[in-house]
Amino acid sequence: MKDSLLILSGGMDSTTLLHHKRDDIALAICFNYGANHNIKEFKQAQLNCDMLKTPLLWIDMQEAFKHFKSTLLQGATFVPEGHYAADNMAQTVVPFRNGILLSVAAGIAQSHNLSTVMMANHFGDDAQYPDCSQNFVSALSEAITLGTGGKVSLYAPYTVMTKKDIARIGTSVGVDYSKTWSCYKGGEIHCGKCGTCVERIWALKEFNDPTVYEDKEFAINVLKEKGEW
Amino acid sequence: MKDSLLILSGGMDSTTLLHHKRDDIALAICFNYGANHNIKEFKQAQLNCDMLKTPLLWIDMQEAFKHFKSTLLQGATFVPEGHYAADNMAQTVVPFRNGILLSVAAGIAQSHNLSTVMMANHFGDDAQYPDCSQNFVSALSEAITLGTGGKVSLYAPYTVMTKKDIARIGTSVGVDYSKTWSCYKGGEIHCGKCGTCVERIWALKEFNDPTVYEDKEFAINVLKEKGEW
Repeated sequence: MKDSLLILSGGMDSTTLLHHKRDDIALAICFNYGANHNIKEFKQAQLNCDMLKTPLLWIDMQEAFKHFKSTLLQGATFVPEGHYAADNMAQTVVPFRNGILLSVAAGIAQSHNLSTVMMANHFGDDAQYPDCSQNFVSALSEAITLGTGGKVSLYAPYTVMTKKDIARIGTSVGVDYSKTWSCYKGGEIHCGKCGTCVERIWALKEFNDPTVYEDKEFAINVLKEKGEW
Repeated sequence: MKDSLLILSGGMDSTTLLHHKRDDIALAICFNYGANHNIKEFKQAQLNCDMLKTPLLWIDMQEAFKHFKSTLLQGATFVPEGHYAADNMAQTVVPFRNGILLSVAAGIAQSHNLSTVMMANHFGDDAQYPDCSQNFVSALSEAITLGTGGKVSLYAPYTVMTKKDIARIGTSVGVDYSKTWSCYKGGEIHCGKCGTCVERIWALKEFNDPTVYEDKEFAINVLKEKGEW
């Protein structure tokens, strides 16, 4: 039965979950919180939802986030380059972003009589983003169950998987990764230099990567320095 | 040290907490989520913040809540009358409202280097609103601490108190309850018939209640039927 709501960004991870759990997902929601890359992601989210005939809601959260401090909300020139785990990547943290998006999603799910909120957070992100960690997901899951009187629960099946595991699942269920967007800079094509581009290139290394990058060599050198290529 | 952020509605409970913890509160935030009574509450919130010289931020969350179902968001004529614990009051639930507002508050607190989010939820509300219960507050508190990397924690000192206890604290710290708004209908004066008016009248029974009600007798009869007057 389709009784789940998916938080869909249009990136690799949530697009994989959309295809992976297509038989359970009744509704997808896309949040615009003013990040540089939101618009690029949205276009890909719409393409994938159209393909699967999944209804998609757009929620504009820019007002809620306008008092937040994060380079991710300040324009492409502020986005740091290099490995995702590098110190300067901490600037891209949007404080408690996942807590906020999951909470709004839980309220919308309850309003639509849907019993599950799905999110595609994964292992590895939690080095920079504490609101991606397994402990956080467990605590918020408990809060959502209690705060909705048992009507909504949280399902985050990739919490203990790496982005490479996700790419493997996505490849097996036929995801076309050219119809996903990762780059934090939100330019015409993927930059190949920001943390998400470097991570995307790493995750898709063993699979078919149809992405056009401005500077893939930059990412490969960063990964080689880390012994990850 | 002033290192706390207060979620202030302009109602009795949060206005009491504003005065009660005035030495700790660096910033108050008011959320407009499209409820009938929001504008009436806001005016009172501004009055009290001006009095204490507490900075106040207004956050418009109407876009985030526009896909929610609740009579509270549908206009004054939809608000049920009678005792707060009555079955029809369940219609006024805004699904996971406190989870959402607390999450946004946690993100803003972290952005402003404030270590604590304060909320004035209290005992009794949890009969209708699962996102006011002690268990919910504990779980979300844990999620906020984990999801902000230990930078923000939640403080909800009235969780195990009744609204009458809050009125007692407020009276002792000099809160002027004529400068607070409770009525869900958001008319010119308090209606005296909706669940929040009935509860307000009960809470202030033993104290000075400067509120002008359209029909206080209605509330007193409801309370007498329950053996609470």
